[in-house]
Amino acid sequence: MKLEVIIFKEKFSLFTDRWSSKIIGEMNDSYVKIAKLQGEFVWHLHENEDEMFLIIQGTLTIRLRDRDLVVNEGEFVIIPRGVEHMPVAEEEVYLMMLEPKTTVNTGNVESDRTVEADWI
Amino acid sequence: MKLEVIIFKEKFSLFTDRWSSKIIGEMNDSYVKIAKLQGEFVWHLHENEDEMFLIIQGTLTIRLRDRDLVVNEGEFVIIPRGVEHMPVAEEEVYLMMLEPKTTVNTGNVESDRTVEADWI
Repeated sequence: MKLEVIIFKEKFSLFTDRWSSKIIGEMNDSYVKIAKLQGEFVWHLHENEDEMFLIIQGTLTIRLRDRDLVVNEGEFVIIPRGVEHMPVAEEEVYLMMLEPKTTVNTGNVESDRTVEADWI
Repeated sequence: MKLEVIIFKEKFSLFTDRWSSKIIGEMNDSYVKIAKLQGEFVWHLHENEDEMFLIIQGTLTIRLRDRDLVVNEGEFVIIPRGVEHMPVAEEEVYLMMLEPKTTVNTGNVESDRTVEADWI
């Protein structure tokens, strides 16, 4: 990876597909990824990885089994390993994620939503 | 750490001191930290840790030995381990950092700027 400044707005302008994470940086054993979300994802958990969700634009609801977390622009949440969650975006959300390189997007669940992230 | 939404604006309202990182989250082996910066830091490097700098407000210049990186709000840069750098903020900058828990703020340099981060 080149040592350069990464501009979220530029990276988000490069794609329109949703629920398909793009890698925009790497540090230590983690990737920085972005995605556009709209609608519901699938319930899943990550057995060995904590995941950070930082909202760049819009409002993301993260459903937990016991409550909903509402995350707005300028806010983030860290979902600890083992905690079941389902992201839901009523309107389109621009999201940054930080997670270990080993993380599969649908965690413990094999789904038609399971995809590998590529660099963008 | 409680599973809750973290709001940058709220966290930044809790302190005024500069060059003193506050921990606002943890994931895997890393801390999410914030700091207010103004003026020049010290030249240093981190031998074993890559560091992510994400600008929440303002403009940060990160001097490298061969060039300057100018990082604005909505942008980030990852400084790889081993790369000497010096952050400079002409006007006050609100910064988010992501780095391994082992990271010392002044890296390989012992300085009066060397401080440990506390949770906020």
